[in-house]
Amino acid sequence: MKIAGESVRSIRPVGDGVEIIDQTCLPHALRWRRLTSLEDAAEAIVHMRVRGAPLIGATAAYGLALGIETDARDGAVEQAAARLLATRPTAVNLAWAVERVKRRVLAAPVERRAPLAWQEAAAICDEDVAINRAIGSHGLKLMEALAHEHGQVEVMTHCNAGWLATVDYGTALAPVYSAHDAGIPVHVWVSETRPRNQGAALTAWELASHGVPHTVIADNAAGHLLASGRVHLVIVGADRVARNGDTANKIGTYLKALAARAHGVPFYVALPSPTFDPSLPDGDHIPIETRAAEEVTHVFGAAEDGRIERVRIAPATSPAFNPAFDITPAALVTAFITERGIVPPTREALAEVFADVAEVAHG
Amino acid sequence: MKIAGESVRSIRPVGDGVEIIDQTCLPHALRWRRLTSLEDAAEAIVHMRVRGAPLIGATAAYGLALGIETDARDGAVEQAAARLLATRPTAVNLAWAVERVKRRVLAAPVERRAPLAWQEAAAICDEDVAINRAIGSHGLKLMEALAHEHGQVEVMTHCNAGWLATVDYGTALAPVYSAHDAGIPVHVWVSETRPRNQGAALTAWELASHGVPHTVIADNAAGHLLASGRVHLVIVGADRVARNGDTANKIGTYLKALAARAHGVPFYVALPSPTFDPSLPDGDHIPIETRAAEEVTHVFGAAEDGRIERVRIAPATSPAFNPAFDITPAALVTAFITERGIVPPTREALAEVFADVAEVAHG
Repeated sequence: MKIAGESVRSIRPVGDGVEIIDQTCLPHALRWRRLTSLEDAAEAIVHMRVRGAPLIGATAAYGLALGIETDARDGAVEQAAARLLATRPTAVNLAWAVERVKRRVLAAPVERRAPLAWQEAAAICDEDVAINRAIGSHGLKLMEALAHEHGQVEVMTHCNAGWLATVDYGTALAPVYSAHDAGIPVHVWVSETRPRNQGAALTAWELASHGVPHTVIADNAAGHLLASGRVHLVIVGADRVARNGDTANKIGTYLKALAARAHGVPFYVALPSPTFDPSLPDGDHIPIETRAAEEVTHVFGAAEDGRIERVRIAPATSPAFNPAFDITPAALVTAFITERGIVPPTREALAEVFADVAEVAHG
Repeated sequence: MKIAGESVRSIRPVGDGVEIIDQTCLPHALRWRRLTSLEDAAEAIVHMRVRGAPLIGATAAYGLALGIETDARDGAVEQAAARLLATRPTAVNLAWAVERVKRRVLAAPVERRAPLAWQEAAAICDEDVAINRAIGSHGLKLMEALAHEHGQVEVMTHCNAGWLATVDYGTALAPVYSAHDAGIPVHVWVSETRPRNQGAALTAWELASHGVPHTVIADNAAGHLLASGRVHLVIVGADRVARNGDTANKIGTYLKALAARAHGVPFYVALPSPTFDPSLPDGDHIPIETRAAEEVTHVFGAAEDGRIERVRIAPATSPAFNPAFDITPAALVTAFITERGIVPPTREALAEVFADVAEVAHG
């Protein structure tokens, strides 16, 4: 997508490694950061310099390639894969991407492995972009129908499932960009997505960069907006979708799904095939990451003079609990927007459309 | 309630006015602020130095007394009342308290009005404390039953409906304090309550001050917690309850009510009689205050060195929308905890228990 008119991807190979946008600095500063080792990649994932299931997958793939450059022997490859798998538990794309690179290289002689790993990581990135473009064009049909009905489209989203969460184009925001680029008037309600504010910080920033009209709201305002008829559809991303369609996504997604259902507003989940996990029967089996309490009790932002400052909003002695994802039951999902079309939220429909998606060995 | 072992009320008469705790400084500093004029009181309400429906009512009553001290003639009383009514639209206690003081003084000769206004404001405060104690003892029975069943009680609340929202004791937290003081093990899930963080800043602080175990969560985590069976009941306060039981409360309350219903968790609203508004048929008629966008895009907190700092979390160019309240339909309320007992959420039951609550002329 575009930053100041220039087309960029969120991750790009450079001389001795890859460059990522350090997303912990957004929306205040656009800083590219070079990853030149397995450990750099793992650190970037753990500290959420990169986040979003597809981009975590892409970064892990390059991270494994960087590890294999240092030592391509079987034991080292397994160890590097295990290091990456341990970074974050919920997004299945991580395991999927690591598994894919590993399978590709282990089938080849040791001296051929490094270039193969780089090729595979690049292929994962290119496929991600193609998948997201296809999600965008399937979603565009939904947007066109709503624009026809209402004259414009009011979308609500949660967290960031835009191009910053992927290699390019985004999942949940792909239909938004498609509609906007096709000249359909579209406006996005961006929920800030506490505790890390990926909505306010990242989604608002990338929509603004691309010129898409949007309004930031507190997560708490979603029920009021859905009740008052000011939202035509909700589109969110996913970190992992189980065999039956239960969807793990950023904490707070479930509350929006409940409110959308209560008011008859369609609730779509953008689902690229690498995020589908046929190895898990339902949402109860998806591991939910718990993150540091400080993400709840402290907030990062820009002070008046531009300095990035961390402020504490709770008493210093009060504990906090910070689950990073929740499960939206398939029954609350209107449909999945996949690269292969719009898919109903049933085990059967998902099995049919994703018949070729392999089960991933979980770390 | 107690701060460092000393019993205090959140508002208290002093020589030439009243003193309030400036709640915009909590949890970082406990600052008492003197209000010596009508304008001081109006400013404190507008800037949310005091907030919470009952405390807004008490502050407005004292504000009117301060205005009447300056000029007690009919026109001046009406003007002072109008100034106070214009401060905030949603909490009905404001109109109720102003109306009550006004009615009392206008029936008396001009020279008697100032002392009568002070008396009436003091009576409103004393009654608030008595009401909240009664809510606490009715709620205690619910807590005892849950403690009997589970060995301890896990409560979820939203925003701050504790003693800081009232003159003393609180509404939603009154049953919590009653249970804690009665030796029942109780733990409170405190949702931070964006955008102004009254949960993280005020509820956590007052529970900590009183020694009640609690854990702060992002508002987004409520659905996950309710789904995972870790909450026995939800208790919230109210800013206004319509004749049919529809409840206006801090934005985000409705999302918790939906999630509580989805998982069969009882959802109680603590309702002192002055918060009941028989003049409005239902929630559609309750005015919802919209507040400044900066409350969403900026966050106040304590920097590492203790300075209070305001930081921006969204792009400087992104607009925000900030509705301060939402409506929870009566159908999602398990029951109201009132000073007169536990009341089912029906028009008939409310009419019966609050038969003597007068309709308030809305400003």
